[in-house]
Amino acid sequence: MRSHRYCVVMCGGVGSRFWPFSRNDRPKQFLDFFGTGKSLLQLTVERILPLVDIENIILVTNRQYAGIIREQLPGVKDSNILLEPARRNTAPCICWAAHHIHALDPRASIVTLPSDHLVLKEQAFIDAIGEGLRFVEEGDRLLTLGIQPTNPNTGYGYIQQGAAAQGWEGIRKVKSFTEKPDLEMAKMFLDSGEFFWNSGIFIWSAESILKAFDRYSPEIAQIFGAPDSEYASPAETAFIDSVFPNAPSISIDYAIMEKADNVFVKTVDLGWSDLGTWNALYEASPHSQEGNVTQNCKVLASECTGTMFAVGGDKIIVASGLKDYIVADNGNALLICPRADEQKIRQIVNEVKGSFGDEYV
Amino acid sequence: MRSHRYCVVMCGGVGSRFWPFSRNDRPKQFLDFFGTGKSLLQLTVERILPLVDIENIILVTNRQYAGIIREQLPGVKDSNILLEPARRNTAPCICWAAHHIHALDPRASIVTLPSDHLVLKEQAFIDAIGEGLRFVEEGDRLLTLGIQPTNPNTGYGYIQQGAAAQGWEGIRKVKSFTEKPDLEMAKMFLDSGEFFWNSGIFIWSAESILKAFDRYSPEIAQIFGAPDSEYASPAETAFIDSVFPNAPSISIDYAIMEKADNVFVKTVDLGWSDLGTWNALYEASPHSQEGNVTQNCKVLASECTGTMFAVGGDKIIVASGLKDYIVADNGNALLICPRADEQKIRQIVNEVKGSFGDEYV
Repeated sequence: MRSHRYCVVMCGGVGSRFWPFSRNDRPKQFLDFFGTGKSLLQLTVERILPLVDIENIILVTNRQYAGIIREQLPGVKDSNILLEPARRNTAPCICWAAHHIHALDPRASIVTLPSDHLVLKEQAFIDAIGEGLRFVEEGDRLLTLGIQPTNPNTGYGYIQQGAAAQGWEGIRKVKSFTEKPDLEMAKMFLDSGEFFWNSGIFIWSAESILKAFDRYSPEIAQIFGAPDSEYASPAETAFIDSVFPNAPSISIDYAIMEKADNVFVKTVDLGWSDLGTWNALYEASPHSQEGNVTQNCKVLASECTGTMFAVGGDKIIVASGLKDYIVADNGNALLICPRADEQKIRQIVNEVKGSFGDEYV
Repeated sequence: MRSHRYCVVMCGGVGSRFWPFSRNDRPKQFLDFFGTGKSLLQLTVERILPLVDIENIILVTNRQYAGIIREQLPGVKDSNILLEPARRNTAPCICWAAHHIHALDPRASIVTLPSDHLVLKEQAFIDAIGEGLRFVEEGDRLLTLGIQPTNPNTGYGYIQQGAAAQGWEGIRKVKSFTEKPDLEMAKMFLDSGEFFWNSGIFIWSAESILKAFDRYSPEIAQIFGAPDSEYASPAETAFIDSVFPNAPSISIDYAIMEKADNVFVKTVDLGWSDLGTWNALYEASPHSQEGNVTQNCKVLASECTGTMFAVGGDKIIVASGLKDYIVADNGNALLICPRADEQKIRQIVNEVKGSFGDEYV
């Protein structure tokens, strides 16, 4: 008997903050970040397999990444790859995927996963997702995984927990969401013990999330509102191509999670990082005695401290006298900049594109 | 009628100080250092062509570079390429070439050139060499070109000039040679006005230099002492292979120039640099307003000063916050080090070889 459990893996992101390691045609989720021989996307799919059959894993991505996904995940059928005709953030992506899965199985429950995060504790991940699925299968509930914070990170969203859900391990009502607080507030959040990082991992039934769109995001609900026969059928591509570009670009947090009154958080320690920036990757990686991180490359460093070295391909770096730098070399581009300047990388990528052309970004 | 004027271009050097731009299998003289589309060797050969026919240009190199020389100089006949079976510095190289040319033409005069130097003033070069050839064709004289120094460089050899050679423009007897003085002495040399940089460019007749070997370097003279019939003949390769490895590794300066009593210097302003180090190349190259040099590459630099960027191939560098650095990227190696540390590069190359293997050097 086929399982009612599905997984949606969102893998359409651009990730320009990791330039030149990530590129327009090969963003972060498709890279072998840790030199394990597997991309973050491949690791994400493998991680969920103990709970969800490969036939029930749906990948949602931008059309331009169809080729690389087929190459990296040959076990996934073409009909399980949903190709967005435009970039519209997570809410439209999740709404489409929910309709698609609902058309396949109206009783489906769904785990929604980012494809470019780090999870070190795989068993804790499996246990938490398993418990979360049981939780949403028992009622009309939207669940997110909250990560025990270890520092006052200002790059994450924070979830404030409320009353405990009786009878469920570590699951509580959500009191509030706060996007990227300033440092002072992040410190208060950390001290209070009530706040958790928003992992971007969501669990709900197809029915619950579609009901939530109807109620909290009627514009998107209307755009994707069509009979099940339009989805998971030969009609789907033409239908999506006609409606998807009309959807607003908005995240699921803004569209649903911050508004709904049936949102819960399961708090868990996953050894998690969103790997959202070079600094996040730096923090998540093993350090040398001098505080250097060598990402997938051979480095001869003297008088270097706190520096992140990342290289695509077989290459050596000899460096001297660098303090708290990012050195990232990949293909036809080399980036050398202070770690403190990493927020400028997006802007740098735009300058590179403007000055030298698309082939460098 | 065939000219009696010959040129010996020495192009067997390794040049590890420019790693990773230069490599064991492609040292400095074979690189297009200035992005002109021509290697330093090609520029050297072109520069002497107004004075010496291509048929009279003899290249002396290590056997491993035969292929690259044929590729870069298709107009040079194989019989004009002398392949050393071992590395023995300049004196054995010059002695062999002199014998070879003497066998072709006992009346030959010879210009000996390094293949990896920069000469900006080509007409001054031609004029000086022309005058020098006439000078050595009139008598038993060894002539070197001395460069008007512009700063107290401690990396060069210095030539002290003595009495003027009557009737010759800018030619004087040599009083002394000093290899790489310390800074204080270099400053005194500069102030005195009597000292000139040793360019490594020599002019003499085949007969004079062979006579000088007999007198001042009898060990080398004996090793290469064979009838003309052994040279420039089918017997030459086997003969050289049997005797060359026995030669001591010694420079022409030590073996002959510092000892001989018929040495003259012609002083000249050539816009010359030996390009012996990254700093020499930095000094010889056009600078941006911030004092940066971009060698053959596209660079987006912010808050960088006094930095040398060099890249092999089509690549962009984005750099921020570097002060007085060398950034040199080529193939499978990237070097980032303070310009002040450039004397460590040789040692670094050895460490790279030891730690990671021959394929990176």
